[in-house]
Order: sequence, then C-alpha cells, then structure tokens
Amino acid sequence: MYTVTVRDHFMIAHSFKGEAFGPAQRLHGATYVVDLEFCRAGLDTDGMVVDIGRAGDVLRAVLGALNYRNLDEEPAFAGRNTTTEVLARAVFDRIVAAIGDGRLGPGARAIESVRVTLHESHVASASFEGRVSAEP
Amino acid sequence: MYTVTVRDHFMIAHSFKGEAFGPAQRLHGATYVVDLEFCRAGLDTDGMVVDIGRAGDVLRAVLGALNYRNLDEEPAFAGRNTTTEVLARAVFDRIVAAIGDGRLGPGARAIESVRVTLHESHVASASFEGRVSAEP
Amino acid sequence: MYTVTVRDHFMIAHSFKGEAFGPAQRLHGATYVVDLEFCRAGLDTDGMVVDIGRAGDVLRAVLGALNYRNLDEEPAFAGRNTTTEVLARAVFDRIVAAIGDGRLGPGARAIESVRVTLHESHVASASFEGRVSAEP
Amino acid sequence: MYTVTVRDHFMIAHSFKGEAFGPAQRLHGATYVVDLEFCRAGLDTDGMVVDIGRAGDVLRAVLGALNYRNLDEEPAFAGRNTTTEVLARAVFDRIVAAIGDGRLGPGARAIESVRVTLHESHVASASFEGRVSAEP
Amino acid sequence: MYTVTVRDHFMIAHSFKGEAFGPAQRLHGATYVVDLEFCRAGLDTDGMVVDIGRAGDVLRAVLGALNYRNLDEEPAFAGRNTTTEVLARAVFDRIVAAIGDGRLGPGARAIESVRVTLHESHVASASFEGRVSAEP
Amino acid sequence: MYTVTVRDHFMIAHSFKGEAFGPAQRLHGATYVVDLEFCRAGLDTDGMVVDIGRAGDVLRAVLGALNYRNLDEEPAFAGRNTTTEVLARAVFDRIVAAIGDGRLGPGARAIESVRVTLHESHVASASFEGRVSAEP
Repeated sequence: MYTVTVRDHFMIAHSFKGEAFGPAQRLHGATYVVDLEFCRAGLDTDGMVVDIGRAGDVLRAVLGALNYRNLDEEPAFAGRNTTTEVLARAVFDRIVAAIGDGRLGPGARAIESVRVTLHESHVASASFEGRVSAEP
Repeated sequence: MYTVTVRDHFMIAHSFKGEAFGPAQRLHGATYVVDLEFCRAGLDTDGMVVDIGRAGDVLRAVLGALNYRNLDEEPAFAGRNTTTEVLARAVFDRIVAAIGDGRLGPGARAIESVRVTLHESHVASASFEGRVSAEP
Repeated sequence: MYTVTVRDHFMIAHSFKGEAFGPAQRLHGATYVVDLEFCRAGLDTDGMVVDIGRAGDVLRAVLGALNYRNLDEEPAFAGRNTTTEVLARAVFDRIVAAIGDGRLGPGARAIESVRVTLHESHVASASFEGRVSAEP
Repeated sequence: MYTVTVRDHFMIAHSFKGEAFGPAQRLHGATYVVDLEFCRAGLDTDGMVVDIGRAGDVLRAVLGALNYRNLDEEPAFAGRNTTTEVLARAVFDRIVAAIGDGRLGPGARAIESVRVTLHESHVASASFEGRVSAEP
Repeated sequence: MYTVTVRDHFMIAHSFKGEAFGPAQRLHGATYVVDLEFCRAGLDTDGMVVDIGRAGDVLRAVLGALNYRNLDEEPAFAGRNTTTEVLARAVFDRIVAAIGDGRLGPGARAIESVRVTLHESHVASASFEGRVSAEP
Repeated sequence: MYTVTVRDHFMIAHSFKGEAFGPAQRLHGATYVVDLEFCRAGLDTDGMVVDIGRAGDVLRAVLGALNYRNLDEEPAFAGRNTTTEVLARAVFDRIVAAIGDGRLGPGARAIESVRVTLHESHVASASFEGRVSAEP
C-alpha cells in the first residue's frame, strides 16, 4: 500500500459549548497544521499516488475556505462544536468531494482511503481516516 | 475512524541483559517522549474522541509512576528487559486499565483501540497498538 | 554563555487592523508554541541556569493569563495589533517581571538575558530577546 | 501489535519524465529522510521486535547503495520515474530481501510487515507498506 | 531585539570538487529546508518586523530561481563548490538585495540583520548571518 | 558569520544532589539529542566551515565516551551534578580540545566559536556557547 502526504495549515477562532471544555468555552483560537494522506494499492503510469502539485493546491483551497475565520459564525458548523476531531472530518469530506469532482485529476479516482490529521499544538492532534467510495 | 493523540514524556535509568544489547548492558538511561493515541469510530455528544484534558491527566499519572526511576529496581519489570517495546506495552496496559476504571470518563468506554509510541531519540522509537476490550 | 530553554503553548483569538494584514483583519486565532530561553554566564551552586521546574511553572502561569482568550478584548493590548512579535514582547516583559519578583528563585537574578520565541505554525515564528536589568 | 522505527537519510540527483512533473522534469535532487518501521505481533526472547543495532546497520547499507548518486544512471531504475513513492517501494524491497537473507538475524523472520516512509521536505512524504512473506 | 522567521524549501542537484568530499564528489542532490530570519530593534507602525506575507513571497521567489536545477550548470556558481554554507550565503545576498530593492516594502529597510539557515537533513544544517547595510 | 550544525545523541543514567531537584534526586536517566554548531567568519578553500564528515565523527567519539554510562560513577563528574547545562559544557570542552588536537583538520583552527545544545525532551534543552581560543 502506497501513501503520499502533504502538509499545510490554517488559523481560526472558535468557542466550545459544554462543561467538559472548561476555559475553552470562551472564544479563543488555534493554528492547525494539517497532514493530508492519500492511500492506494498501486501507482499511476507516472509512478505517483497522486499529482503532488494538485494535491497541495486542493489542500490549500480547502483550508483557504476555513482560514482566518471565526468558526462560530460559519453556517457549515452551526450547532456543533468545532473540535479538532470534527474539523478533521470536515476537511476529509471536502477532500473526498474534490477527488469525486476530478479536481485531483482522473488518476486520483484510484485513491482508496484518505487520512486527515490536524496538529493543534506540539502535544495534541486529531485525525479522521476513511475510505473513498469509488462512486461519487 | 477518529484518532486523538496527546504527548508527554518520562526519564528513567535501566540496563539490559543479553549479548544482543552490547554496551546497553551497562546501567544507562533514556528520555521517552510518549505519543498516546485513542481510536474510535464515532464521536461523543461533545464532538470528541475522549476528553483531552482527562487524557492528558491520565497519561501524566501513568508516566509519573515510571518517571525518575531506575527500572532495574521496579518489581513490575522484575526479570525482564525494559526495552522500548516492553515499556510501550506497559504504558498501553495501564492506559487500558484507566479506561476500564472510568478514569477517562464514561464516554471513553467507546474507545476501540489505543496506540502508545515511545520516542527514545531523534532516530528511534517503538510502539504497541491493541484493541480495548469492551468488558473490563 | 549558558542557556536553558523550556517549551509550552497557548491558544487565542484576535484580529488585526491595517490593510497589510489582508484576510487576517477578520477575527481568527492561533496556537502559539512558546520557547522561553534564559541566558547567563555562570551556573548556580546546583549547576543550573535556573530551576527548570520553577521556570516551567512561571511560563505556564504567564501563558495561562493569555490562554483561551480573545485578545481583542484584553485591556493589556487595547489599541494595538497583537502580532506574534508584540505577543513575544509581552511574554518577555512578564517573564522579566517574574524574575524581578523572585518567582524564579533568588538565583534567577543572575540571568542576564531572556529570549521568547512564538511558533505560530510549522513555517512561521517570531521572537523578542532582551537583557534583564539587575535592578528591578 | 509492536512496531520499531529507525531513521536515516540519503541524498540523490534525478529527473522525471512526463508533463505532470512540470519543472521537476529538469535534473534536480533531494534529501530523503527515511523512517523504517518493523511490525510483528510478539517480541523475541530479548524483548525486541528486531535488533535495533542490526536494523540501523541494514538501513544504512541499503541507503548507502543509493546515496550520492544520480538515479537517472542507475540500472535498477532504468525507464522509470524515481518518484518518492517508487523509491519507498525500492527501499522496502531491499529491506525485505535483507530479512530473507538473515541480515537482520534469525528472529527477524517473525516480522510480519514493514513500512518505509521517505520525507522529501518539511511538507511532503511518501511511504510503502507491505507484508513480509514468511517464505523467502 | 525582534526576529521574524519564515520557512520554505528547494531541491537541487550538484557535485563537489575536492577529496574532502569523498563520495559527494559524484553528482547527487539535496532538499534544503530554509529558515529565513529578519532582525530589528523596533517594530513598524503595524506592530511587525516585516510584512510576513511579502517575506514569504520574496523567499519563494529567491528559492524558485534555484529550485529544480543542477547547480553545476548555474553560471552564478561557476568554479565554486555549492556547499550548504555557500548556498546559505547566496540566499542571504539575494534577500538583502530584495530588501534594498524595496521588494519587502519600505519598512523593511529598518531590518538590521538577516540569518539564512539551510537544513540539508535531520542531522545537518548550515547558516549565514550578516548585517543589512542601510545604504543599498 | 557562517555556522554549520551536526546532530547526534547519547543515553545516560545519573542522579542529582540538592532539594531543588525533587524526584530527580533518585537515580534516573536521559536521552540527550545534541546539536553541535561551529561558527567562523569565512570559509575554507573547499567552501566549508568544517569538514562535516570529520565533525560528525568527532561528535560521535565525544558522545561515545559518555554513552550508555551511569554518570554518577564517572570520575570526570565526581562531586558535581551532571545537569544538562554541565553536560553541555563538558561536551563543549571536549570539542574544543579536539579542534586544538587537529582532529577536525587543520582548517578547523579558524573556528571562532562553538555552541553545544542538549535536548533532554520535546520541552526542555540547555546549551553552552563559547569562543575557541586560537592558541590551544
């Protein structure tokens, strides 16, 4: 099984609802350094899992739609806590949609699974990993 | 599948028995930087894999019971080499016990697997990963 | 010249005023991973630059007063952009005050300079370094 | 499941064929920082996944056969793009051959899978992971 | 004294002349992860050492002129070994020229010194640090 | 000013005397990841600060004399606390002696200063920096 990983980051404000969050119920923020992994059994005719240039462009576009925002005001997350786990899943869903739309190239449809990891500090991170359905 | 990871460290002395260990048969020591990963299919009602504050506290407590010690004199490891692999397993077992005891909260019982990685230097690490049995 | 460095982090929301900041004029946030360096020519009688336990406690207390906050509402920064540079200086000032107050122990008065580095992502950081005046 | 990881690096020149590679079609080069992971269900009688000294020696030897070379002139890669993915697989194949030859010791035959990750920069990496067949 | 640091990378092929280089006399290559530090005593009216967006753009442009090239064929380095030290100096000179040309904005003329560090692997790096003359 | 840095590590046991050390008064241990920096104004005729191969060999030899040892039993440290600061200074002194002995080559006598940093964990380090006297 082959994997290719690219890294980028985004910076947001948000707050959490629920006593479990303690002081993180206040409006605060985070930098998320994002590792995006693409996984498939074989390589394309160029010898690649995915066009790494396109992969970086798509990741930048997906994170750009979240970057420099207050997530408490984003309709996409209305009524939900934007924990690192929830954001990892949201980035995953948008990357999978980009694969389905062909934004990563036709060869990218052979990608079998994707993993998105968000590092929120030097001591904590969260990730979501899932299969990419062949039929979009 | 969701994963949350927290990091902490501990510092110990020990020695190894067996020619394979060469100069590491002498009394020496190590800093272990520990990555603790919790894995489960869904999130709790707060949108979390595990309460990350509790996770950090439990990891600190488990490592605190090993920290600043000579493992050659610890009854828990009598007659065994405390290799990085063995220590990763020992930390895993104690984290799983903490989940079973409810020290990570009732929601943590939904955790399906745990992975413990010990980084012993910038060029070497070891880990143990296993399932968390639902019935403690 | 000896240096000791300790690391911790804090997470805040803020916005910037000025066209130079582009989309960062919107309310967003950041995780800052902080490296705090203490520098002096000699060591104390224990062989230390500073009691590293106290150093970590003081850093945690200083960052705790900023952590999980919206800096746009903090009186200490009223009318100023809380750029990474400005925050590095603010942490520096508070650490120097802590040295003066004896919170790092009497030996810490021999510290000659302090450097505070804030890493805002895997690709950007800022720092402030200055001398610690012997007379508080 | 236990894993042990060792790290080393190599530095090569190469070029790629195919429009997808853009400017990387020109002769250029890379440093690859390599993480080699060995995985097995149990430990040997010394408490190890693999003799970590031997593992480091074998990794150095395998990378030494690639280090300081122009891969465009290496017969092993004739007619192929030496992408990070292809090189991860090549290192994997040579490590598996070393296990089969006994160069990692007789106990290493219990290794079930191997993963090779090549970090080509601070923002990109590729890996190949596969099972080690018991019958060489 | 304030410092701001931005990071990027470039990938090149080259060879060295001289017995001291051993196997590195062969054509090989490297990834250089570059840390560019700007240093000045005060901040501009926005609270910055330098416009970090412009800093990143200038660094990308400077490294882009070296990226994906065989340095043995670059006239700028004719007759010289492109060691990591020499390349750090070359990047420094080009950054200083960019400051003089106003490509980092008018405020950047207050920058007093610049440091360029090239990381060639996880275990080796080189840097050049020098003052920026006020008169271009 | 040019700097070249090489990295290696060593693993030791020790204990500290003095109430300030709390639980670190017990026998424990540490991994120290060591960054060794050489600094000089100009380059040698090969374009180097120091022969990086020799630098790595000398660092390995110096750390090898400390590696896998209980520093409480080393005569070189009798009656002293082997804090990270003290060990950084000890490595510095041995590197300076190696320069004086010509073990880094004749060109290395132009090195003006050396800095040794010991990382004891992901959150703490200490360093010693000093000038290298031209007359050994």
